[in-house]
Amino acid sequence: MAGIADVARLAGVSKSTASRALTGSGYVSERTRDRVAEAAATLGYVPSTSAVSLATGRTQTVGVVMPYVNRWFFAEVLEGIQHALLERGLDLALYDAKPGTAGRRRIFEHFLARKRFDGLIAVGLEPEDEELERMLALERPVVSVVAATSATSVVSIDDGHAARRATEHLIDLGHRDIVFLGGGSTAHWAHVDRRRMSGYIETMTDAALADHVRHVPSDVTCPGGYAAAVDLLGDARRRPSAIVGVCDEVAIGAIIAARRLGIRVPSELSVVGIDDHEYAEMFSLTTLRQVPREQGTAAVALLERHLSDPTLPPTEVRLKPTLVMRTSTAHPDSLESAMAVDMRATPRSGA
Amino acid sequence: MAGIADVARLAGVSKSTASRALTGSGYVSERTRDRVAEAAATLGYVPSTSAVSLATGRTQTVGVVMPYVNRWFFAEVLEGIQHALLERGLDLALYDAKPGTAGRRRIFEHFLARKRFDGLIAVGLEPEDEELERMLALERPVVSVVAATSATSVVSIDDGHAARRATEHLIDLGHRDIVFLGGGSTAHWAHVDRRRMSGYIETMTDAALADHVRHVPSDVTCPGGYAAAVDLLGDARRRPSAIVGVCDEVAIGAIIAARRLGIRVPSELSVVGIDDHEYAEMFSLTTLRQVPREQGTAAVALLERHLSDPTLPPTEVRLKPTLVMRTSTAHPDSLESAMAVDMRATPRSGA
Repeated sequence: MAGIADVARLAGVSKSTASRALTGSGYVSERTRDRVAEAAATLGYVPSTSAVSLATGRTQTVGVVMPYVNRWFFAEVLEGIQHALLERGLDLALYDAKPGTAGRRRIFEHFLARKRFDGLIAVGLEPEDEELERMLALERPVVSVVAATSATSVVSIDDGHAARRATEHLIDLGHRDIVFLGGGSTAHWAHVDRRRMSGYIETMTDAALADHVRHVPSDVTCPGGYAAAVDLLGDARRRPSAIVGVCDEVAIGAIIAARRLGIRVPSELSVVGIDDHEYAEMFSLTTLRQVPREQGTAAVALLERHLSDPTLPPTEVRLKPTLVMRTSTAHPDSLESAMAVDMRATPRSGA
Repeated sequence: MAGIADVARLAGVSKSTASRALTGSGYVSERTRDRVAEAAATLGYVPSTSAVSLATGRTQTVGVVMPYVNRWFFAEVLEGIQHALLERGLDLALYDAKPGTAGRRRIFEHFLARKRFDGLIAVGLEPEDEELERMLALERPVVSVVAATSATSVVSIDDGHAARRATEHLIDLGHRDIVFLGGGSTAHWAHVDRRRMSGYIETMTDAALADHVRHVPSDVTCPGGYAAAVDLLGDARRRPSAIVGVCDEVAIGAIIAARRLGIRVPSELSVVGIDDHEYAEMFSLTTLRQVPREQGTAAVALLERHLSDPTLPPTEVRLKPTLVMRTSTAHPDSLESAMAVDMRATPRSGA
């Protein structure tokens, strides 16, 4: 059976470089790593990672804890993390911790306690105090993506800023009757949603529109935004001239509801979101852009810094979302701008 | 420091039961596992999993290889797998293998070769011959979710049946000019999409509608279906009376395109999908239902059988999708049924 020395000889590198390339511990250029991997594959050599772990005390694995994997934001962050770990030769252990489930309890009490990872990335986890304590007690570096805590390093966007820019944009266009749609439909009010609503309230208040502040709760999903918007828009007496969606999925739900009710966007209703979701373009949604994948990459880079320097204090990386103008917003009652984008105005030769 | 004997004593079970509960090897009731985990947590006892792996030859980890995590089907299957592994005390190592990337090559040549898992689940992977050989050479059981191979065990739905039922439903309603929308927009034509198109073609041919067979390619995403449908529906001479979407996301894209063009669904256009995506209800989409989460659970159960019986031959679990009737399909030119569901007919007091 081939040994590490054979692999190193075939790849034309030192034994220690070959070892680093195969275990993912320490820096090796991408080209060298590929060459070593090829040599190992040719010779059928595979290091016993259990033995490597005992010897180095490193698992070459990063744990990722998240409450959902089937939502746009979480799935995109996960892709970013996966990609960055793959480049570094590290494995990804996934822990799906839905709020309020027995599975989540088991993850905190059992799975994490096994410490089968060198560090943890917690994505939108919103841990209870006790859960946070358990994570910190593991004595492994923890980086959070989106978090209210300052006990760990955090990567996030400035959510308050995003909501303020969205609201300002509508006020600049001349809107006063602006509803904040989404969040707060259950006891679980996510920090990020609350921070966004605070940004909206601050901006309305600064513009002397405190009397117009109105929150319509909904599940933070596209169908949730749709259902709440059907209720809100179906009654002409309650109907606002503009909506700030807590996120793009909710904003898109509102646009779908408006179309079904025959209310034109943007001439009769302006809608702005936060995210730049993959469907935003399709609905011509004006929104504040964040790139969750980059947050995943940034979290891995930050975790790497913690791993190489255990004295590094908790660090915050806060990214600024930018306004992406599409055509879901306009001056109130601006029929002209509507005609330019409403495809129903296109001549129809059939039907 | 507490040892396994202390944990067993506190939990009131034998040492071997405590060990099984903490390592995830062998059967332990859920209640016992919780009790042992609690005792371990109380005493601060955590087994060294590297030592456990060397001793048992088991990693207590299942590897999951998939080309995407940010698409509905894949994310749902992943949730099902995660849930089933969590119940069994097993870790999940995620390998994201996008077709045609350097990362995918590295996963097959390097990551999988480390064999840091007791078995593999390959979700919609469509491996090249060489990739499949590499997986089989690992001498670990492999279960595929959706696959064209018979070299591994497979869990899937009957895709041909799904497309046949969708097409029959439209023919029964009186449609003849039925387009199959989606797939084939790039060199990568997924097996599952091809099998669905074959089901459509067979059914059209059996109904003496071979002359009406028409495939309009698109990316297999909601924006992809939207873009292709805008082209198809925008030209009245090419417009069909009904569309079979290769999946719900494509079908929903077609409905969004129709609404933007002022074409009524279902009175002027019937649309049927395959999936029962989380957005299907919101668009009143008639579709063939599959439950990807159950496929993930079934894959874990099948893998477990392979782990406990290495002589088990490759096994196929094929699930039958069922027709879910909503209101996106109707007889051609059936204005009455349209009025019943078109919310634009609702009286509007405002605007």
